Amino acid sequence: MTETLATSAEPTPTTAASPRRSRALELPEPLSYRIKRRLLGPALTTDQLEHERLGIPTAVAVFSSDCISSSAYATEEILRVLVGAIGVFAFSLVVPITVAMLVVLFFLILSYRETIKEYPTAGGAYMVTRDNFGLLPAQVAGVALLTDYILTVAVSTAAGTAALVSLVPSLGSYSVVICLFFIFLIAAGNLKGVKESGLIFSIPTYFFIAMGGILLLVGAFKWVHGDLHPLYPGLAHGIWPAGASPHGQGTVNAFAYGAGLYAILHAFASGGAAVTGVEAISNGVTAFKKPEWKNARKALIIMGGTLGILFFGLSALATKIHPVPFAEGTPTVISQIGQGVFGGKGVPYGALQIATLFILVLAANTSFADFPRLASFHAGDNFMPKQLTTRGHRLVFSNGIIALALCAAVLVVATGAKVDRLIPLYAIGVFTSFTLSQAGMTKHHWTRKEPGWRRGMFINGFGAFLSLVVDIIIAVTKFTHGAWVIIILVPIMVAGLVRLNRQYEAEADELEHEAKAAAMAPVLRRHVVIVPVAKLDNSSARAIQYARTLVPDELRAVHAAIDSREADRLAQEWTRLGLARVPLDIVDCPDRRVARCIAEVVAEELGDSETEVSVLVPQRHYRHAWHRLLHDSTAARIADSVEDLPHANVTLVPYHLSGRGGRREKKPTAPSAPASPTSA
Amino acid sequence: MTETLATSAEPTPTTAASPRRSRALELPEPLSYRIKRRLLGPALTTDQLEHERLGIPTAVAVFSSDCISSSAYATEEILRVLVGAIGVFAFSLVVPITVAMLVVLFFLILSYRETIKEYPTAGGAYMVTRDNFGLLPAQVAGVALLTDYILTVAVSTAAGTAALVSLVPSLGSYSVVICLFFIFLIAAGNLKGVKESGLIFSIPTYFFIAMGGILLLVGAFKWVHGDLHPLYPGLAHGIWPAGASPHGQGTVNAFAYGAGLYAILHAFASGGAAVTGVEAISNGVTAFKKPEWKNARKALIIMGGTLGILFFGLSALATKIHPVPFAEGTPTVISQIGQGVFGGKGVPYGALQIATLFILVLAANTSFADFPRLASFHAGDNFMPKQLTTRGHRLVFSNGIIALALCAAVLVVATGAKVDRLIPLYAIGVFTSFTLSQAGMTKHHWTRKEPGWRRGMFINGFGAFLSLVVDIIIAVTKFTHGAWVIIILVPIMVAGLVRLNRQYEAEADELEHEAKAAAMAPVLRRHVVIVPVAKLDNSSARAIQYARTLVPDELRAVHAAIDSREADRLAQEWTRLGLARVPLDIVDCPDRRVARCIAEVVAEELGDSETEVSVLVPQRHYRHAWHRLLHDSTAARIADSVEDLPHANVTLVPYHLSGRGGRREKKPTAPSAPASPTSA
Repeated sequence: MTETLATSAEPTPTTAASPRRSRALELPEPLSYRIKRRLLGPALTTDQLEHERLGIPTAVAVFSSDCISSSAYATEEILRVLVGAIGVFAFSLVVPITVAMLVVLFFLILSYRETIKEYPTAGGAYMVTRDNFGLLPAQVAGVALLTDYILTVAVSTAAGTAALVSLVPSLGSYSVVICLFFIFLIAAGNLKGVKESGLIFSIPTYFFIAMGGILLLVGAFKWVHGDLHPLYPGLAHGIWPAGASPHGQGTVNAFAYGAGLYAILHAFASGGAAVTGVEAISNGVTAFKKPEWKNARKALIIMGGTLGILFFGLSALATKIHPVPFAEGTPTVISQIGQGVFGGKGVPYGALQIATLFILVLAANTSFADFPRLASFHAGDNFMPKQLTTRGHRLVFSNGIIALALCAAVLVVATGAKVDRLIPLYAIGVFTSFTLSQAGMTKHHWTRKEPGWRRGMFINGFGAFLSLVVDIIIAVTKFTHGAWVIIILVPIMVAGLVRLNRQYEAEADELEHEAKAAAMAPVLRRHVVIVPVAKLDNSSARAIQYARTLVPDELRAVHAAIDSREADRLAQEWTRLGLARVPLDIVDCPDRRVARCIAEVVAEELGDSETEVSVLVPQRHYRHAWHRLLHDSTAARIADSVEDLPHANVTLVPYHLSGRGGRREKKPTAPSAPASPTSA
Repeated sequence: MTETLATSAEPTPTTAASPRRSRALELPEPLSYRIKRRLLGPALTTDQLEHERLGIPTAVAVFSSDCISSSAYATEEILRVLVGAIGVFAFSLVVPITVAMLVVLFFLILSYRETIKEYPTAGGAYMVTRDNFGLLPAQVAGVALLTDYILTVAVSTAAGTAALVSLVPSLGSYSVVICLFFIFLIAAGNLKGVKESGLIFSIPTYFFIAMGGILLLVGAFKWVHGDLHPLYPGLAHGIWPAGASPHGQGTVNAFAYGAGLYAILHAFASGGAAVTGVEAISNGVTAFKKPEWKNARKALIIMGGTLGILFFGLSALATKIHPVPFAEGTPTVISQIGQGVFGGKGVPYGALQIATLFILVLAANTSFADFPRLASFHAGDNFMPKQLTTRGHRLVFSNGIIALALCAAVLVVATGAKVDRLIPLYAIGVFTSFTLSQAGMTKHHWTRKEPGWRRGMFINGFGAFLSLVVDIIIAVTKFTHGAWVIIILVPIMVAGLVRLNRQYEAEADELEHEAKAAAMAPVLRRHVVIVPVAKLDNSSARAIQYARTLVPDELRAVHAAIDSREADRLAQEWTRLGLARVPLDIVDCPDRRVARCIAEVVAEELGDSETEVSVLVPQRHYRHAWHRLLHDSTAARIADSVEDLPHANVTLVPYHLSGRGGRREKKPTAPSAPASPTSA
């Protein structure tokens, strides 16, 4: 189209406006959306995106379930390694190892107090690492944390299931199914957008803290009064309960060869699972009541203290009660301690199990809040698929939630919902991200040199060092037990993310290069409109009517002739109806590939690279899906083969069939006075 | 758009033509097509669709393999029923039953001689029934025949496999796989478009006829010389070979209760399988050399005579050799007769087995020619999906070939490739179509009253009667053995076809009603162009550039705002770039359903039902499929939700990404002198 022509037909937008519009056409919702709305509730609008501010007690409930619930399996995993290596001597080592881990916990808490103060808006490992070391190390921290969130879901639901099975042993054979059910339930709740409502979180968390507290108090009381006895008296004589005998028949001899030290480090590594979740509060400082960072710090100390007391208490009770880690995973060590303290399976014991189950499910739920948010950070920085940044129907990052549920489900099925098979994979990620984020904090202090930076740098530096040491211990001692999977997976994933990032950057670069100039580029010299016509029916009539609306430089109907008699008939009809103003081109199509044939016609027009071609494909819309199946998809195929050409614009001109035959319901237009085409 | 405007911008097609076009753009073939061409050979053009004319010997080879090959299993199936019911007495009844079936064959041949003369161009049951009784009975005839073509493939390949297994018993456990392999091989050959080359058909057909002839001659010679003995001498004392003992331990007592008559009718019904394929020549009269119908008649007689001699001869030899039908299906009766006559497993025996295998595979191949053609007749009359009328890459009805192969494969798997399980389903269809087509011929004679019509009417009338009687015998005696499947299936399929037809007719009605007037209908009053813009990049710049080519009454960019800050930024950039001539509408999208939001804007414009709306969706084309996966499919979703509205035309404006970033390869246009949009 020449610019002169364009000018002469310049649209007059203002005059053609409002008065003509009567009312908008009805636009029914598709079935898929109606189902979604039924299942998930009405769509939430973006302005409903806000958080309630939490007081300290509620905040502890909301953020600490992951951390505190670790006490439900940490002692057991330490014991499992120790018993395997050195038998009954395990019970004399469990407390020292617990204390060592609590020292690590203490420094982590100190470190995170710094982080909370310095990064009160977004203090997650990803953000801190990105801020101090840049995007690439942030990917490592993020990926490490993401794998750990997946594992948190798997470990927590598996441990919760184990608590349930300890209470009701007959459920034992359904562990995997129960676990998957919990994952599904939590994912569904999150897709629905569970509000961070204080009550829902407070009940299980404080119920567990209360039951744990009662357990420790009663245990301590009985201990002092000498009423606390080993569960299995035979243990002293080397008689283990069935399903719990140590592989190694370990003896003190082990120490003679240095293997004992290795066993201790290995047990310590297993205990590392206890301190996962410590980072949760630093991710959510903005949710606290003002002054946010001060309240968050208090909550952090409460959380750390609670975990420390429970973890230490349970390990201490274990030295007296001698619970054994069973190969099957149930009854759990904490359930055995409960029986030992409360004297059998009474109401207090049952309450303890239920409380354990609840807090573990809640812990899994925490990952469903953290994983999608962290993934959306990655995606926002163009390191993960963009779809992870989209807030769904209920304002949550639905794609992240679904991805997490699927990954966790696969893990649960692969490990048969056994906590001890998952533990070797666990905690490596979290300590990697601790290391990076604390190192980042160290650099932060060094760079800023704000008041008290020396103290802060020391704390975070030591925290980073400690995290690194623990990480190495876990990686080495757990390597052959499964840690290698994570050690291989994380670099591969980071490499994948970097590759993805390169792709996104290249695309953005290409899409934005001189985009502004392009937006103002003049139109091409010529505009050709081509209407592929199979036969003269209402759907092609619609396309021709629309074609004439476009005022092109050239307008042609093209018939790809498979059957020459049919083509002749069409040409005759065309002439007879006086449609000659829209000339009909009959193109021979000997190989019967109509779409290809049209594409060739278009390619020829585009040859001068100064032409804009519009291909108007008459597209019939059938009332039912099976009606559509009865026809070949020529329209779609034409669109497919044409749109690979630059400046070939495919327009789908709809014609809606009522599916009831006879009189059309939606007429293309009232064919009142059949005007000759193109001109009035 | 008002007509006045349209007139002022009237295109000038002649002046804008040839000189500017330099050469067509390159249009690479998609991978899928390149693979297809590699597998099937180059595409055949429509003008290559022709048949060679066949002389009688070649025609017999081409058309009679289905019919003649029936002799390979007909005797066995008669014996199977008889032995089951009356034990060794079976051998005295096999010849009478064979003769009875040959009488039926004789009258069918006579009947089809009439059909060939009266319908020399298209004498299949479908055409004859449609011509005389109308479309609905033709559907019954057609469907019955289609089911039988499917069964022919299954039975023939299963019998061919049995012939092979009789020769090489160790292949026995792979029967189903071998059978599926044959089906796949024949289907592939047909998709490639095996030419009806005389040689390919002649060799197996005449090889089998020759081996059958030698068998009968040697058998007759030995019989006369008293050298022909029963295979299993123990049979006379009631000692059957393992795997072949009759269930009923049948004795003559059976006759006392009338069960004998039933057994005879049942055996006769099984023999019905022998005369399937008689109709083949009447389908292909046009392929004969002139005078077509006379040559076709001769071929028919040769075919019938050959089948008659082979069938009778084999049954006669069976009375002497006493071959037994094994439960496993192998060794086959014809293979046992071969051993009996040729004296063990020598070269002549092997040649007989190979010949049997070849002709049976060829018989299956015949169905692959007939089924797709018959299905295309149904589809041409709007009773089956249109896709069955499309000639594929190699000019064959590819969809029909694939459908047949799939159906036959399912049958083979379901029956474990056992001929005796397939036989009860077989022949009902073919006799139903015989009945209808002969009854049609009767009416034909009656209506036309051409010379000799009385004789013709008698022959066809008797043929129809005989076919009906045989059909009823098969339906009743085989009902509980599986015939019920066909008896239920055929009416259901016919009902389905009629439903399909109604749908097609309704659609055609709706599409063609006043189509001519619609083709000349004036354009709508107003043309609004809407460009959904997510951000200002090269792909939306392309869409805006194209939009201005269209010269609409109103042109707007619409941004569905999810993030208000982003929307503000876009609006500012828009103003800054002086793009105000394409006004930007920011539409609030609180539920984040961009596609829905755009659809609502469009629906509002359409409210006056005098507006044509073009929605120009910027569509990015990525270089690799995985690149596309990294983005949400907003463009496609907008197209989906808008195109349900009448007069909402979605144009996909392509922007091709090179995938390498940086400088664009395909510029939308040389942004030389950034002109302000819409006007020059």
